[in-house]
Amino acid sequence: MKTVEETVKNAREASWSIGEADTNQKNSALEEIAQKLQENKDKIIEANSKDLEELKKKEGYSRAFHDRLLLDGDRIEGMADGLRDIIYLNDPVGEVTSMWKRPNGLQVGRIRVPLGVVAIIYEARPNVTIDAAGLGIKSGNSVVLRGSSEALNSNKALVEVIQEGLRAAGLPENGVVLVEQTDRESATDLMRQNRYLDVIIPRGGAALKKTVMENATVPVVETGEGNCHTFVDESAEVESAVSIAVNAKVQRPGVCNAMETLLVHKNIADAFLPKALEALVNEGVEIRGCPVTANHHREVKAASEDDWATEYLDLVLSVKVVESAEEAVKHVNTYGTGHSEAIITNSYSNSRKFMQRVDAAAVYVNASTRFTDGNAFGLGAEMGISTQKLHARGPMGLESLTSSKYIVYGDGQVRG
Amino acid sequence: MKTVEETVKNAREASWSIGEADTNQKNSALEEIAQKLQENKDKIIEANSKDLEELKKKEGYSRAFHDRLLLDGDRIEGMADGLRDIIYLNDPVGEVTSMWKRPNGLQVGRIRVPLGVVAIIYEARPNVTIDAAGLGIKSGNSVVLRGSSEALNSNKALVEVIQEGLRAAGLPENGVVLVEQTDRESATDLMRQNRYLDVIIPRGGAALKKTVMENATVPVVETGEGNCHTFVDESAEVESAVSIAVNAKVQRPGVCNAMETLLVHKNIADAFLPKALEALVNEGVEIRGCPVTANHHREVKAASEDDWATEYLDLVLSVKVVESAEEAVKHVNTYGTGHSEAIITNSYSNSRKFMQRVDAAAVYVNASTRFTDGNAFGLGAEMGISTQKLHARGPMGLESLTSSKYIVYGDGQVRG
Repeated sequence: MKTVEETVKNAREASWSIGEADTNQKNSALEEIAQKLQENKDKIIEANSKDLEELKKKEGYSRAFHDRLLLDGDRIEGMADGLRDIIYLNDPVGEVTSMWKRPNGLQVGRIRVPLGVVAIIYEARPNVTIDAAGLGIKSGNSVVLRGSSEALNSNKALVEVIQEGLRAAGLPENGVVLVEQTDRESATDLMRQNRYLDVIIPRGGAALKKTVMENATVPVVETGEGNCHTFVDESAEVESAVSIAVNAKVQRPGVCNAMETLLVHKNIADAFLPKALEALVNEGVEIRGCPVTANHHREVKAASEDDWATEYLDLVLSVKVVESAEEAVKHVNTYGTGHSEAIITNSYSNSRKFMQRVDAAAVYVNASTRFTDGNAFGLGAEMGISTQKLHARGPMGLESLTSSKYIVYGDGQVRG
Repeated sequence: MKTVEETVKNAREASWSIGEADTNQKNSALEEIAQKLQENKDKIIEANSKDLEELKKKEGYSRAFHDRLLLDGDRIEGMADGLRDIIYLNDPVGEVTSMWKRPNGLQVGRIRVPLGVVAIIYEARPNVTIDAAGLGIKSGNSVVLRGSSEALNSNKALVEVIQEGLRAAGLPENGVVLVEQTDRESATDLMRQNRYLDVIIPRGGAALKKTVMENATVPVVETGEGNCHTFVDESAEVESAVSIAVNAKVQRPGVCNAMETLLVHKNIADAFLPKALEALVNEGVEIRGCPVTANHHREVKAASEDDWATEYLDLVLSVKVVESAEEAVKHVNTYGTGHSEAIITNSYSNSRKFMQRVDAAAVYVNASTRFTDGNAFGLGAEMGISTQKLHARGPMGLESLTSSKYIVYGDGQVRG
């Protein structure tokens, strides 16, 4: 087995060729990988079933975990489709985003270039292996994959297929590499390979993010933690507010853009809360509310201070009645994680206030927070949803995987 | 004295008001500060002279250090002028950089927002105190300043003036704060204030950068290390190449965009090197060359492997004769720090090759690397020159001090 350093060094060396490859060559690699995924379906499923067998023996086994790890024919077809979708996205590399002339005749411009080597640390979701590889290749980067131990066999089989595809397209196979070590020390080792890595993206829960933040010397883009709020203002249209609240909570409760806290203006509580709570409870949602909320439905449990700060990722919702839009903004900025926040209102001034003052990657007026992702925003597939302010904020599409360089054309200019 | 945490917490609280201030109010703060700098000249010079007296007692005192630390009437006028220049720059905050409509009717856009709280760690240059404050305020950020112990009295006096200016413009004085602790532990403490800081920018030498990189958990933007090259290709026009090489080395040798290594194509060595080396030696430059270079001038010392990797920041230059443009690109990408790199050529294909393959913040054809700064590029004053790929690369003007947020306007849309 290669050391972590050898693995990332290989990726760095390959990155020079990947970075210079033209769009046709990168697309052809994506198509080759898509085809080989389909051709090698049985082999991949076999590797995946080894992982699933191991999983069954483990403590803490859950049906949900099993389902995330599972690969079948349909899911592999889905991966191939995902790669083909990336073929249709614009190649960001080489775009001159602006160019101007200085008084001394120098032409100064900025051009998009690949970041270089992008590392991703993620949990037992084999589809991330293919998504990350596809987005990385298309944006001219080498990709270093570090999945979890539970998915090791699946990831090995997938990376083998990816590397075959790269070779078939005339690109170096080390454009996508898998770190096969899955212990903690090797993760820390990876996070400190500044010489070979340009960025490291943790995709997973708060614990993973914290470990990366504390140990990484490589620049990090944090993704995915979403304690998202919906604020129903006093002027909201009740039916629409109920429909948005239910959608934001239950349409897919396990994802980062699902609502975790519902804030309700006191003046609409009587009209809105009984209907909304009934609808949510009917969808199986457990409600943890403030005392005022509890007056509006029999099944409300008392919310603790911790509830306001919790990302449940489950059919649980905390609900609070607030005095004003200002209090809602303050609550969001105090407890939120800067992911997706919505106001439901018919007040022009409150919509502007909420938009301006809420500090988050995506702020909504009159829509469900569930739309925060690359595809729903029209950016195409994404590498994750950044909740930090540096470099990329919100869904990280192909452009987020690029940097820029200044290009300067002269005719012998010197500085006076 | 406030603790580091108290200081940065104050800056975070002030950042909400600074971030919402309109352009007129921010400009008025800059004008107030400029006026108060001029009014308080004597007080500032008095504080500065305390620092200078302390400095004289210290080991390792140098004339150059003294000069960097010195404030006099002209320099304070220069600081006030610098702030007034920032008034004329566009306010980046609130610009909607793009907006589009999705098939479901959602309008999705991106708007520039302040980063929030920007911390800067720097050495004994009091002018940085004013530049950083001015750029931070204009871009709607709170600024945390952490200067060196040698400049503490000067910085205290300057920050007092800045805070008076902020108050006079109706903005919270904690929009600009000084960390008064100057020991190592407090620096590390500062680098780990993730709750209150959005970015930390080290401005200084390689040692400072390394400390920050290894200890910071707050996102970092690295700036300023410049091992810059000029490659004189075989087709270069000799006179122009000599003039560019001399300018890049001697016009201001102590700055990060000055040339440190001259690479020369073997086919132009006979025509170019005698003239170039003579001109450089006449300007007082010490030449450390490869064996071929040594054949062209009597005063060439032998370059060691270390020389290729050294940023001299002084009148010293390493010179190497190379076989080809490819070798030049390889040398630059091996030893460079990704700052500013130039090719002097009349070959279209080599100019394209160099531009595409050299991995640096700024790549030049036929001009001096000395132009890499905010003013010379037409961006206005800058917070530093980033040599990393994430978030900002090259001169960091006002836009580099902003992030973005997605804004989404709907009419009740829910996800299907």
